[in-house]
Amino acid sequence: MKKAPLRFTFLPVLALMLVIPALAQQLKFAELGGFRLQSGETIRDCRLGYRTFGALNAEKSNAVLFPTWFTGTTKDLVALIGPGKLVNSSKYFVVAIDALGDGVSSSPSNSKLQPRMKFPRFTIRDMVNAERELATRILHLSHVRAVMGISMGGMQTFEWMVAYPDFMAKAIPIVGTPKLTAYDLLLWEAETHAIKADRDWKDGDYTAPPEAGMRTVADIHALALQTPSYRVRQTDPKDFPKFLDSTERETMRGFDTNNWVRQLEAMMMHDVSREFGGDVKRAAQAVKAKTVIVIGLRDHMVNPQPALEFARLLQAPKLESDGDCGHLVLECDGPKINDAVARFLAE
Amino acid sequence: MKKAPLRFTFLPVLALMLVIPALAQQLKFAELGGFRLQSGETIRDCRLGYRTFGALNAEKSNAVLFPTWFTGTTKDLVALIGPGKLVNSSKYFVVAIDALGDGVSSSPSNSKLQPRMKFPRFTIRDMVNAERELATRILHLSHVRAVMGISMGGMQTFEWMVAYPDFMAKAIPIVGTPKLTAYDLLLWEAETHAIKADRDWKDGDYTAPPEAGMRTVADIHALALQTPSYRVRQTDPKDFPKFLDSTERETMRGFDTNNWVRQLEAMMMHDVSREFGGDVKRAAQAVKAKTVIVIGLRDHMVNPQPALEFARLLQAPKLESDGDCGHLVLECDGPKINDAVARFLAE
Repeated sequence: MKKAPLRFTFLPVLALMLVIPALAQQLKFAELGGFRLQSGETIRDCRLGYRTFGALNAEKSNAVLFPTWFTGTTKDLVALIGPGKLVNSSKYFVVAIDALGDGVSSSPSNSKLQPRMKFPRFTIRDMVNAERELATRILHLSHVRAVMGISMGGMQTFEWMVAYPDFMAKAIPIVGTPKLTAYDLLLWEAETHAIKADRDWKDGDYTAPPEAGMRTVADIHALALQTPSYRVRQTDPKDFPKFLDSTERETMRGFDTNNWVRQLEAMMMHDVSREFGGDVKRAAQAVKAKTVIVIGLRDHMVNPQPALEFARLLQAPKLESDGDCGHLVLECDGPKINDAVARFLAE
Repeated sequence: MKKAPLRFTFLPVLALMLVIPALAQQLKFAELGGFRLQSGETIRDCRLGYRTFGALNAEKSNAVLFPTWFTGTTKDLVALIGPGKLVNSSKYFVVAIDALGDGVSSSPSNSKLQPRMKFPRFTIRDMVNAERELATRILHLSHVRAVMGISMGGMQTFEWMVAYPDFMAKAIPIVGTPKLTAYDLLLWEAETHAIKADRDWKDGDYTAPPEAGMRTVADIHALALQTPSYRVRQTDPKDFPKFLDSTERETMRGFDTNNWVRQLEAMMMHDVSREFGGDVKRAAQAVKAKTVIVIGLRDHMVNPQPALEFARLLQAPKLESDGDCGHLVLECDGPKINDAVARFLAE
């Protein structure tokens, strides 16, 4: 009888403690209005989804920008943010950002004025420019502690480094690349062809999702996501049908096909040296951020060679993973990478 | 004036010397009649294409069977046969054999009675059984010095080893596999899906070739044929469109889509342990041939793991290639492999 009221009085406090971080990481939107792209075209009524974690300190010196990977949304980043995780939101004000075309930010799938393939093509630089608008105009940040990202988020990080070198103190591209190789182009071209070969695709104006094409895309994606030896280790041939079915279902359920195509195109155009006359060395010279480059040596989804070369040009430390997880370095070497990132951010 | 007649008298001899090997390697056909498959179905009017090189010795002890790879024909094997090449036709009576479904031997593309997808499904074992008919009934061989083959030819070699262990003294499977892994299944499933998603496929009854599907297949094939680093080394991104175009054209020109599907299915069913209750160890125990197993450690088209395991079970020597050519071990390590095969055959 004595303990009951006590317990009760604590409840609101507990509830509040649970609610505050939950609220902080709720999806918010930055309205950017007409957003002009590198191509000269404009995304009308452009908006960017984002979630913040932790608190900005008084000096406004602890913000970390964390844009999404290909087909990912900020919801997928939540699991990587927090004490002991990839980025510690008890120390940093982490801003997870939905990249253009991800189905949360302005995308072919959600644009009313420019739906589907009417949605203009955008580049990785356009993603970065939109994120900069969010950071400066909406969040009133003129400088951040770090930009970091995984895969296509790593591509955005490389682009941030060369496009706005004074904006961040540190940069952590993870399994990203400063420019695409012929291997990467071949991979994404295969997926593009698979979609466009589907009778239901209809140049993006499909009434039923192009399932046959997306099934092939799911297969191609699964071929490249990890190494062959990972797949052999993980999946007994007799369990293959079950594996294939769940992989295909997950891919088809998860992401709109028009968005898939526009984000693919953004990656295929990606090259940080473009505004430096194609000279990667000059692009590297523009970088001012301290950098740790996380590389999957057996990454078959984003070829590691340009990142290795960029690290050499920057004389930047690399963190290499050679596990058979391939592109999924965090699955093979999560704790090691989390520790290294934490140490680097704290330096 | 004195020399002219001499030269002239030599001409017919020279001409004959040039003609004999040319004739010997001409395409011939073995008529096998109704050929019963493992499934119980029958290939009607079954025939097998083959070419012979060199001469059978008096003891009939120097024959080497050399079946084709996936999508390959015996015409493609010609370049690998001769002194200093993969198999020396001045020492061995080399019988290059067109595997079922390759468009030369009975295939969906050339069967009048069972055209296209009416052509029954066949297995790697069925290929081997048909080749045995050729060897015994047509060529009157009751034993051969060796069976050898590359890729799907290596799969046939593994199947020969367990199915007819007394038939050959030696076996040389090159980048083949005794059974498919989940990775291999994923690769071939991706190609199958790409074909079947094409609106022009029409269950094999296409009027125009399913070009969009085959274009995706070409891309997938090119992704797996060599390693990513090979592609990065060979193809500058600015030359990518030219590379892609020539790769796709070559694939689409080279092989009938129905044949592609039936040979894919044969590979996907391949497992030498099937008649041993799924026990690879028991399958290995059945082998009597001396064996050298040639393996691409970075082979992304036929996963090397089951071949490595089989070599261990046989306690057989391996010849490992770890070049970035991936599946194309002969491109990276041709002279080394040619030498080792020559030494092994001569032992």
